Amino acid sequence: MFSPLIEDLIRALRCLPGVGPKSAQRMAMYLLEKDRDAAGLLARTLELAVDKVGRCSQCRTLTEQEICALCNNSRRDPNSLCVVETPADVLAIEQAGNYHGRYFVLHGHLSPIDGVGPANLGIDLLEQRLANEPLEELIIATNPTVEGEATAQFIAERARARGVSVSRIAHGVPIGGELEYIDGGTLAHAFNSRTSFFPGG
Amino acid sequence: MFSPLIEDLIRALRCLPGVGPKSAQRMAMYLLEKDRDAAGLLARTLELAVDKVGRCSQCRTLTEQEICALCNNSRRDPNSLCVVETPADVLAIEQAGNYHGRYFVLHGHLSPIDGVGPANLGIDLLEQRLANEPLEELIIATNPTVEGEATAQFIAERARARGVSVSRIAHGVPIGGELEYIDGGTLAHAFNSRTSFFPGG
Ligand SMILES: [Zn+2]
Ligand SMILES: [Zn+2]
Repeated sequence: MFSPLIEDLIRALRCLPGVGPKSAQRMAMYLLEKDRDAAGLLARTLELAVDKVGRCSQCRTLTEQEICALCNNSRRDPNSLCVVETPADVLAIEQAGNYHGRYFVLHGHLSPIDGVGPANLGIDLLEQRLANEPLEELIIATNPTVEGEATAQFIAERARARGVSVSRIAHGVPIGGELEYIDGGTLAHAFNSRTSFFPGG
Repeated sequence: MFSPLIEDLIRALRCLPGVGPKSAQRMAMYLLEKDRDAAGLLARTLELAVDKVGRCSQCRTLTEQEICALCNNSRRDPNSLCVVETPADVLAIEQAGNYHGRYFVLHGHLSPIDGVGPANLGIDLLEQRLANEPLEELIIATNPTVEGEATAQFIAERARARGVSVSRIAHGVPIGGELEYIDGGTLAHAFNSRTSFFPGG
């Protein structure tokens, strides 16, 4: 119904997560009818980002710099390293605000079916850091999924082999969550991981 | 928290309608982490569309062609012209499927406060078509808003002055709509525009 180029644009916009045919059409009309300056800026910024954004040479998070701002921040605790699956996980932990160490981003998890092995997750680089940095603790914050757990297990063993103490962030009922609405898997995990109310005795 | 270029990308994505900070961030991460090919294609298509898409020289709808496919379609009834506010309105009417004439797209409505007058809506071109084409009916399908009604009134008078018969699409309770949930303005209009149940007598 629209011209070929507009149909191309609507199709291209559908690559965005959460954007179906109706919103892609609304977006295309908005950009072409109401805000071509913003559309041009988006096109140029996107092209530049696709071209320039790579990975931090130390933590592998997404950045156009050789070393990201977090790795470059000398106030971050060099004794603590937190392993996460994605750059968005780094943001989530930073927003929580109580972790002050450094990060390592896997960009995924071990998934033999999809051909994702240790090399794809930068485990070599992680091992170098385990060997060369004054790490006292490796905190594993992969997702509590089957693949995330397998990845955690794999990394934990590598760290232990190098004498670095390893921990896993806690999983269970979210603070403020109501038991009634928590899924069974989470609840079962919360029971299995229960801690003593009076640890001393 | 992200690198400057990624923050630029998140900001640029927020120009899209319905995209807040959280979805812009999710979109940026998705494009850079999961699908750079799609991101590059989106950037290039958007740039091309901003550059090439203009208006049909006959109906003013958005197109990269001199004359759009609808205007070029000789099977469309040349005696009937439908005036709409936006290209998306053309699509909505085409999807309804019972109109087979031609279109004229205003790209807005009269709005003196915003400096939108007849020249911005292509009324000169519309008058040329009223003068030169074998039009029997001008159907006005502007929105049932104050501005849409004022625009309809303005165009209707121009058409009448040229001896073209003018109609306005009906507004009222949507088919399948329940009176209980219809807004008062629509309901009042539906009462004022009631038609005789037995038009003959
Ligand atoms: Zn880094
Ligand atoms: Zn046309």
